[in-house]
Amino acid sequence: MKVTLNRASFMQELQTVQRAISSKTTIPILTGVKITLTQEGLTLTGSNADISIETFLSVENEKANMQIESTGSIVLQARFFSEIIRRLPEETFTLEVLENKQVAITSGKANFIVNGLDADNYPHLPVVESHNQMKLPVHVLTKLINETVFAVSQHESRPILTGVHFILSDNSLLAVATDSHRLSQRVIPVEQAADHFDIVIPGKSLIELSRSLTNEEEIVEISIMENQVLFKTETMYFYSRLLEGNYPDTNRLIPSSFNTEVEFSVPSFLAAIERASLLSHEGRNNIVRLSIRPDAVVLYGNSPEIGKVEESLSYTASSGDPLDISFNPDYMKAALRAFGDMSIKVKFISAIRPFTLEPTEDGVQFIQLITPVRTN
Amino acid sequence: MKVTLNRASFMQELQTVQRAISSKTTIPILTGVKITLTQEGLTLTGSNADISIETFLSVENEKANMQIESTGSIVLQARFFSEIIRRLPEETFTLEVLENKQVAITSGKANFIVNGLDADNYPHLPVVESHNQMKLPVHVLTKLINETVFAVSQHESRPILTGVHFILSDNSLLAVATDSHRLSQRVIPVEQAADHFDIVIPGKSLIELSRSLTNEEEIVEISIMENQVLFKTETMYFYSRLLEGNYPDTNRLIPSSFNTEVEFSVPSFLAAIERASLLSHEGRNNIVRLSIRPDAVVLYGNSPEIGKVEESLSYTASSGDPLDISFNPDYMKAALRAFGDMSIKVKFISAIRPFTLEPTEDGVQFIQLITPVRTN
Repeated sequence: MKVTLNRASFMQELQTVQRAISSKTTIPILTGVKITLTQEGLTLTGSNADISIETFLSVENEKANMQIESTGSIVLQARFFSEIIRRLPEETFTLEVLENKQVAITSGKANFIVNGLDADNYPHLPVVESHNQMKLPVHVLTKLINETVFAVSQHESRPILTGVHFILSDNSLLAVATDSHRLSQRVIPVEQAADHFDIVIPGKSLIELSRSLTNEEEIVEISIMENQVLFKTETMYFYSRLLEGNYPDTNRLIPSSFNTEVEFSVPSFLAAIERASLLSHEGRNNIVRLSIRPDAVVLYGNSPEIGKVEESLSYTASSGDPLDISFNPDYMKAALRAFGDMSIKVKFISAIRPFTLEPTEDGVQFIQLITPVRTN
Repeated sequence: MKVTLNRASFMQELQTVQRAISSKTTIPILTGVKITLTQEGLTLTGSNADISIETFLSVENEKANMQIESTGSIVLQARFFSEIIRRLPEETFTLEVLENKQVAITSGKANFIVNGLDADNYPHLPVVESHNQMKLPVHVLTKLINETVFAVSQHESRPILTGVHFILSDNSLLAVATDSHRLSQRVIPVEQAADHFDIVIPGKSLIELSRSLTNEEEIVEISIMENQVLFKTETMYFYSRLLEGNYPDTNRLIPSSFNTEVEFSVPSFLAAIERASLLSHEGRNNIVRLSIRPDAVVLYGNSPEIGKVEESLSYTASSGDPLDISFNPDYMKAALRAFGDMSIKVKFISAIRPFTLEPTEDGVQFIQLITPVRTN
């Protein structure tokens, strides 16, 4: 295998597959990146226990300016290899597999000889079947991920809750995540539905996927296999394992009748929560208190050592019973950030029942739930 | 004490004094910032065992837009206080000392009440005497610091070596630092010399000083007291303790006759050293080898596990005996970065004697010394 190509183009592919490569793996060959060169172009593969990423750089890519002298494959230690490529002196470099799996990396007057591993020993990626596919624009998929993934559980005590539950039915795709203290559920309309599916994708995989999808205008093709999901773009295959087990029925958690409602603009409400949480973070319980009265909505935070804060909040509408309710401000911050710059309706039953947050605007199926903290 | 003022102006002063405030101090009041309000303006003070910083915001500063209702002083926990100020909703805020050392911080509809400490219990800063002063432009002083401070020792086994040695004589100011493996010495001409001085300032203090001096055009007035040095600008007093003890005579370390000389352009030499050190960092010894021959200068790096690199270096002149010499590339990188974008002459005696680096340009009194590593 011998090829000369543009360093920046190669570096970009390498950085993408590196998202899947961990230096902490117990399988030594998985600390490496697999490089496969055919007459069509260069394929890079990185993998860990949860995800695998494969990118393809075509020989027809003009910027890559690829000159293939001989095809082949090799595995190189990913961290070093990328450090070396990054620091090479010239715009192009040459990669050549020598004898005994040694690899020469040459650019200008700099000559590296590094030890490689046999690509035949690299694990095989799942075989893609063509059924059960759906397509989404990148910006729709990444938005859906960002609106839900923050609510997955960080604890392995209930592994199924560390994933986001996706349900595809005829005309809509539902995504829901909960760590049992808060929940975020988003439903988006889809035009071109494949067979229905019902899967749970690890939150960590979705975060890496979202970071790897940089071209907002591209289309992602999603294929479900037995225990894997594949997200496919023109230049990248992103595989993730699926979580096994039954996801809890979240529909029954969402209340439908309420006694108190307040409407806020998200940015100003978020700023107030951030101020109040400065002090609550120092307290033993990390809670803030919201007091809703017919003529005022006031937010309180305090820490016995540092001091206290109170702030009369701006709101656009308020109705129903007066209420004093306490909650973890960190859940509220994450929820508000997921809504972004919009107006929301917060609906309460009582001080001890979960409350909901929804966009004020009609027709956006996005609901969040936060469980309050009982203070007496 | 009660004052209303511009939040951004105040925040800037607060960030400067925070450089001197450590949350790890054993003296609780030193985790706080001292705020003193007079009819002239607002003074902030922060301090730790090594340095103290005092800033002054004048009532005449238009941007600060200060409205003083009553004067006084208080000490507030610095980290929280700055987090609070940073997150306040409006452009201005009001600070008011209430009863029992409680302090109200108000901005828009946000009201904080935090616990303060009695300013009378805050330690006094050294009294400034007016003798033994000299003046330097900020950019000259920070350059002098950056050219030397990286070479101070990081180990407390010989405390005096953790500082930079400054010697002011009639027409020049010398700064020298060494950790006994490498040395950096810079001499700059000074016009307006005060009484001679010979002091050692802790490296850490100089790094903080350099970061605090943001206005390159300002003039710094340097005053030496018994065991303190004061750097004074229009808006800041920066005090540091001096290190006590005799600094070693570094002049006798610098050789004067050599057998091999090579001239390099710093940026390309640095890039080659960085490449070679990628592999040497993985080896047991972290060394690279430079081979100087009449027709080529080659740099080698290797790690038994990863691989090796060799690079034929570009150089502008070379003379003297052939030589093979090994050294720690990290010392070389730090030395080259201190020179910046210029051409340097590297002069060697033998593979086991320290070698020197100097600007090629005449008249710049800047010399560095690196001790090689014996490899056999």
